[in-house]
Amino acid sequence: MLLIADNLQLTRPAVAREFAAGDTAALKARIARLVAAGAEAIDINTGPLGRRAAGRMVELLETATAATDRPLLLDTLDPSALHAALAQGAANRIIINGFSMEPDRLARILPLAVAFDVEIIGYLLDARGHVPLDLDRRLEIASSLWQRATEAGLPSDKFIIDPVVAPLSWPDASAYNRALLNVLKYLPDMLGFEVQTIASLSNLTAGPAARREKEKIEAAFVPMLAAHGLRMLLVNMEHTRSVEMVRTCRRILDDSVFAWQPADARDG
Amino acid sequence: MLLIADNLQLTRPAVAREFAAGDTAALKARIARLVAAGAEAIDINTGPLGRRAAGRMVELLETATAATDRPLLLDTLDPSALHAALAQGAANRIIINGFSMEPDRLARILPLAVAFDVEIIGYLLDARGHVPLDLDRRLEIASSLWQRATEAGLPSDKFIIDPVVAPLSWPDASAYNRALLNVLKYLPDMLGFEVQTIASLSNLTAGPAARREKEKIEAAFVPMLAAHGLRMLLVNMEHTRSVEMVRTCRRILDDSVFAWQPADARDG
Repeated sequence: MLLIADNLQLTRPAVAREFAAGDTAALKARIARLVAAGAEAIDINTGPLGRRAAGRMVELLETATAATDRPLLLDTLDPSALHAALAQGAANRIIINGFSMEPDRLARILPLAVAFDVEIIGYLLDARGHVPLDLDRRLEIASSLWQRATEAGLPSDKFIIDPVVAPLSWPDASAYNRALLNVLKYLPDMLGFEVQTIASLSNLTAGPAARREKEKIEAAFVPMLAAHGLRMLLVNMEHTRSVEMVRTCRRILDDSVFAWQPADARDG
Repeated sequence: MLLIADNLQLTRPAVAREFAAGDTAALKARIARLVAAGAEAIDINTGPLGRRAAGRMVELLETATAATDRPLLLDTLDPSALHAALAQGAANRIIINGFSMEPDRLARILPLAVAFDVEIIGYLLDARGHVPLDLDRRLEIASSLWQRATEAGLPSDKFIIDPVVAPLSWPDASAYNRALLNVLKYLPDMLGFEVQTIASLSNLTAGPAARREKEKIEAAFVPMLAAHGLRMLLVNMEHTRSVEMVRTCRRILDDSVFAWQPADARDG
């Protein structure tokens, strides 16, 4: 499970301040800290759209590529911002985050992945942007997304599905997230290939709650996702318990990478 | 996921001391503490077999039934100890733990479940008592266990499968435990009914390791099991992080029982 930092968002006051001040040194140091904390990729989010969306995305991307050679997710729904960023031709692996069955995104975002030969995340949202509760409806949407992606010329290894984690504050959150786990279980059989998948852990605890409580809930959801084969996880790297849990899951599930070592007994 | 205490074992020195001294008050207080800590059932284990196996099992069972009306697991491979305990006719729900494809257990333990109309756990071990690595081989054994159980006259609601957690100290532990999760995934479809399942969390961390390290690993495995629909989990109730994780998993997966309440934010 690739660990992706969701911390580089212009909606976070500290990030916004450094960005507004043009303090690229501080932003680069911030990115370096995320990588040091274990981030294997960085999600770059310019926040709500504005007149300077394209310029902001390009500036953030330039700062990020100067700070790390890790994969970068371009997290915006603004097609012109995406186009401007992709046109930079960064050497990093680039992932567009993302598109859905909403007509404007199909028409203007999906083609960018093909044109620039990069990966793209498709959200299991209906055409109005809602998360369906029903498992079959989600699988239908996954199938529709993949159909539109292939029609656009996207190869299967560039296609990533985000089944959309439901915040626990939703009344039917448990039903939504049980459906999400089942989506992960059935997707490969339904699509006929081991499709890449991604989820946002911070979605689960979106809203007001104590950080310790959020970390407790997140730490329980991480192994559920890992055990269902999720490939990439967007995590708030400040939630150290969640990050540690990703590592512990690797020790349990990935024999080749992380083994149970006698040394582990000594650091406990 | 039913939380079952694995703490009432005569292999634990403190339990053995109280038992040897005939201190049933101390043993009852111990059981009451397990229940207060959240144990929804108690596993009664007399330890290695001896000449007094039957008497010890009966004594422990009598103490337990006097202390709690929760379900009790009779954890022994000694048929005469089991017979003597079952003949007590306890009012508690009783589960025999357990049988396997080993010929002696098929012949002498399985019939006791039918004769006394109680539940019984079948281990996914081969006829020599080994855990198979291969998923298909495990499913084959599950099918054989169920065939032998039906031939013996056991109804499906009295049949419980233990897919056998592999200690992380085994060289191929990750492969074994990935296979275990897949067993849980495929069992209902293969048997054609929602078979009850059980696993021992303490098995995962069997061997020498710091308790904190054990709890960290156990806490990561609990949600994997929960998300794969495991029905019962044997837990060392002293591992509070593991117990807490069972509760957190319920909040994520069971909408009717545990919901995300604003109050949760305040206790964090």
